[in-house]
Amino acid sequence: MTQGKGPYFINLKVTFVMSKVASFISLGIISLDRNTGTPLHRQIYERLYEAIISGQLKPGTRLPSVRALAQELGISRNTAAKAYAQLLAEGYLESKVGSGTCVTSILPDDLLYSHPRPNGRAPSATQPEQFETRPCLSDRGQAIAQIPFLEHSPTQAFSPGLPAVDAFPFKLWEKLLVKCWRELPFNRLGYPNAKGHRSLREAVTGYLRAARGVRCTPEQIIITNGAQQAISLAVNVLLNPGDDAWVENPSYNGIKAALSNAQANIVPVPVDGEGFVVDEALARTSQARLAYISPSHQYPLGVTMSLARRLQLLQWAQESDGWILEDDYDSEYRYSGYPLAALQGLDKAGRVIYMGTFSKVLFPALRLGYMVVPPALIEPFRAARAHADRGASLLEQAVVARFITEGHFARHIRRMRTLYLQRQRTLVEAARVHLRGLLQVEPHDAGLHLIGWLPQGADDAQVSRRLAGHGIDMPPLSSYAIRPLARAGLVMGYTSMPEHKIIIGVKQMSPILAECLAGQQMQLSA
Amino acid sequence: MTQGKGPYFINLKVTFVMSKVASFISLGIISLDRNTGTPLHRQIYERLYEAIISGQLKPGTRLPSVRALAQELGISRNTAAKAYAQLLAEGYLESKVGSGTCVTSILPDDLLYSHPRPNGRAPSATQPEQFETRPCLSDRGQAIAQIPFLEHSPTQAFSPGLPAVDAFPFKLWEKLLVKCWRELPFNRLGYPNAKGHRSLREAVTGYLRAARGVRCTPEQIIITNGAQQAISLAVNVLLNPGDDAWVENPSYNGIKAALSNAQANIVPVPVDGEGFVVDEALARTSQARLAYISPSHQYPLGVTMSLARRLQLLQWAQESDGWILEDDYDSEYRYSGYPLAALQGLDKAGRVIYMGTFSKVLFPALRLGYMVVPPALIEPFRAARAHADRGASLLEQAVVARFITEGHFARHIRRMRTLYLQRQRTLVEAARVHLRGLLQVEPHDAGLHLIGWLPQGADDAQVSRRLAGHGIDMPPLSSYAIRPLARAGLVMGYTSMPEHKIIIGVKQMSPILAECLAGQQMQLSA
Repeated sequence: MTQGKGPYFINLKVTFVMSKVASFISLGIISLDRNTGTPLHRQIYERLYEAIISGQLKPGTRLPSVRALAQELGISRNTAAKAYAQLLAEGYLESKVGSGTCVTSILPDDLLYSHPRPNGRAPSATQPEQFETRPCLSDRGQAIAQIPFLEHSPTQAFSPGLPAVDAFPFKLWEKLLVKCWRELPFNRLGYPNAKGHRSLREAVTGYLRAARGVRCTPEQIIITNGAQQAISLAVNVLLNPGDDAWVENPSYNGIKAALSNAQANIVPVPVDGEGFVVDEALARTSQARLAYISPSHQYPLGVTMSLARRLQLLQWAQESDGWILEDDYDSEYRYSGYPLAALQGLDKAGRVIYMGTFSKVLFPALRLGYMVVPPALIEPFRAARAHADRGASLLEQAVVARFITEGHFARHIRRMRTLYLQRQRTLVEAARVHLRGLLQVEPHDAGLHLIGWLPQGADDAQVSRRLAGHGIDMPPLSSYAIRPLARAGLVMGYTSMPEHKIIIGVKQMSPILAECLAGQQMQLSA
Repeated sequence: MTQGKGPYFINLKVTFVMSKVASFISLGIISLDRNTGTPLHRQIYERLYEAIISGQLKPGTRLPSVRALAQELGISRNTAAKAYAQLLAEGYLESKVGSGTCVTSILPDDLLYSHPRPNGRAPSATQPEQFETRPCLSDRGQAIAQIPFLEHSPTQAFSPGLPAVDAFPFKLWEKLLVKCWRELPFNRLGYPNAKGHRSLREAVTGYLRAARGVRCTPEQIIITNGAQQAISLAVNVLLNPGDDAWVENPSYNGIKAALSNAQANIVPVPVDGEGFVVDEALARTSQARLAYISPSHQYPLGVTMSLARRLQLLQWAQESDGWILEDDYDSEYRYSGYPLAALQGLDKAGRVIYMGTFSKVLFPALRLGYMVVPPALIEPFRAARAHADRGASLLEQAVVARFITEGHFARHIRRMRTLYLQRQRTLVEAARVHLRGLLQVEPHDAGLHLIGWLPQGADDAQVSRRLAGHGIDMPPLSSYAIRPLARAGLVMGYTSMPEHKIIIGVKQMSPILAECLAGQQMQLSA
């Protein structure tokens, strides 16, 4: 490093500046903008920082004195001194007696950006910098990146699992937001209770006991950021790598992601008219540690698990110290009779982890759900929840609690039941008229979606891709499968669409389906 | 199972009902409450369900006819029929030609609750049921339950890491809540973007580029539910079980929880006046895959990592394909000069994962933070975030974005800087006057806490416990340590306390410290 005097930047080897110059301005390093809100000393700091980091100003380079800089830029000495002081404090400049202020010599050449930057500016604000990074992910990180993740949106037709966001009580919610925000004492703005806001845990307890036959107290409730977090927590707390877990086939894809992440073995179990086939499960592995089931309304097939099967599975859990993860994701929506009581209510050995979500009853962007854990698991789950992310945002928990206790929740569910039944009838009728021989759509007494059955042997993934090209989001049944399924079909959401759009959508898909199935030489047997 | 006729409940072996009786009412099974909102048929359903599940009504037990039940309870036949229909649908009752309606015979005795319940009611709504559950947690579940989790609260004195929630702009926030809620188009209420709301990612990008020298685009930002989730995601995506990870000693406890959960090896690295000692780190293991550091303001010691050390660590990362997790948790609060630029800005190889939180600048109950990942990691982190919990709640993301872009954020930070500096001065001065010889409290130019140094060899855990008994929450430095530290101390938050409370608190702790240290035969060397 040359420490000699002479013109500033004598060591500068900046390829795009051919002449050796003595001023920042002619170097293009500093151009001040007096019209932005950024103070001048900050602008100088930023430009010099960039120039040093980018290699434009090399280690050892001598800088103008404070006085010279001030003069050159037409600023006060104080402003110039402030900028230097910051860079000195951060270690990018060093001050040596007799040789003034220099770029720190410890900056090794090869650690700095060697490629010249057009104007000493930071990289573009819209295009990420490109590095030749070897990602070196963990096995878990690699596995989870392989799991498909579908982002369903109400802007697409027939997206499954979405409530009628168009019929949400916006005004009422706004009132509750304001009310709850005003009511929150400021000392509640610290870290929240990791298990969830007390008022919400109480409200959920009341709801689950009355409406779902769940046996619980507020102590057993853990509020989660939606159902997926409940699944992740349960799998993480309960399963070791290599443990067997029974999963319904087909099933919600989120469980596969969680099990892959935990490096557990997924053991697919067939579903028949009575739900999860326990005998088949036991035949496939006697070592299972957990069963993931959706007994009220199997996802996505819609079957209800029979009492006999429920009892058989509970018996397995009790005898083998196994766990049952009961996903009760949309049981609020039953269009005839009452929702069936939860399996959890039958558990006399504390082996069931029950979970539900507000995504289907309120709206998914709220990101709130809950789980009910047996007493022996309260502490482990509280710890896992706390260490995962410290708990859920407080305000919206308070809003949901009020929404429930003031009776709006029950009213909203009743209104939605009527609306969804109407929308379902419209879909079934439109399909009967316009999709005859192409897609078989039967009415169903529960849930937020129907299965549109394709002819035996059809390639539902291909059909689904073709429809997606027309803005119709009906995932193939095969995308929920772990092992190949006997029948092909499409999962059709109807609850987030007004009736006229359902009819338009069905009419639109008719020629697409016809062409696609003709290409596959398939036809529904009448 | 007896199928014979005769009085109802002929098979009933309910120990606490000594007489064989023929009515639900005298059995105490059904007592209707006409004043609640619950419909009568629902009440009947619930009581019968409870009685069956609890074993009060045994399998095979014959029930009164609909007509008899209606008469007995003084209700309409329709109401009685509805209750039975639901239980028949759920499989708890069965209807046999010639023998009326009976409790399903498939309910095995030993699966039902064998212990009598005082009045056939569900278990208490406040006390969880007790099972003899063998918890059988996973190794991860067990490990994480061992990690201490401190819930700091603004209601305790000197709780560390809490902003001045008393000085939060409540009215403004309320306005933004309403504004953002009204602006959200209803079709945004579906599942949110897993990486975060676009407007917030853009606002964070602008802030980090200008204020922290972070090089990034909105594509690289991932909004998290606070810093802890960022840590969990990073550790999960990047580390395999058994991988070595360098952690500053002492350090934030959340990293230990995340690493335990990932079953990684924690390799503690000492911190000196220049921060993380890279040479020591390399001497302890040459196999590290990740370094967790807080270079701007080491937690909890407060040291700033020198430029030389930063470059040395970056060199390691580049040469070994290692990862640096930079936790920039409270760098907004620098009371002299500018906050030091982030280490991420020096990374030319895409090896730094940068993270920050809104807990310290806004409020912890918001549960929002962010991470900046190198381009090669965008997709793996997006997948991990999506599969962890589908993304953060939308509304409050929109509010924070507006808070930033409308300039409130920068203003709030400026206001808080002045306030915190004042509060810190009050603490230092009060300690100088009242804690002389007991606790050494020096001013510091950054952060939300100070270290109160105890005499060499003192037992800080004991002192901390003693203070906790008086509502003073100053965790011992040793509770942040992985290996024993050279000095004992207490971590003192001061930012969430008004000045008069700081003075009261300091006066209050003086005799407690004196007594405690006398007991330990310790004294500060003047």
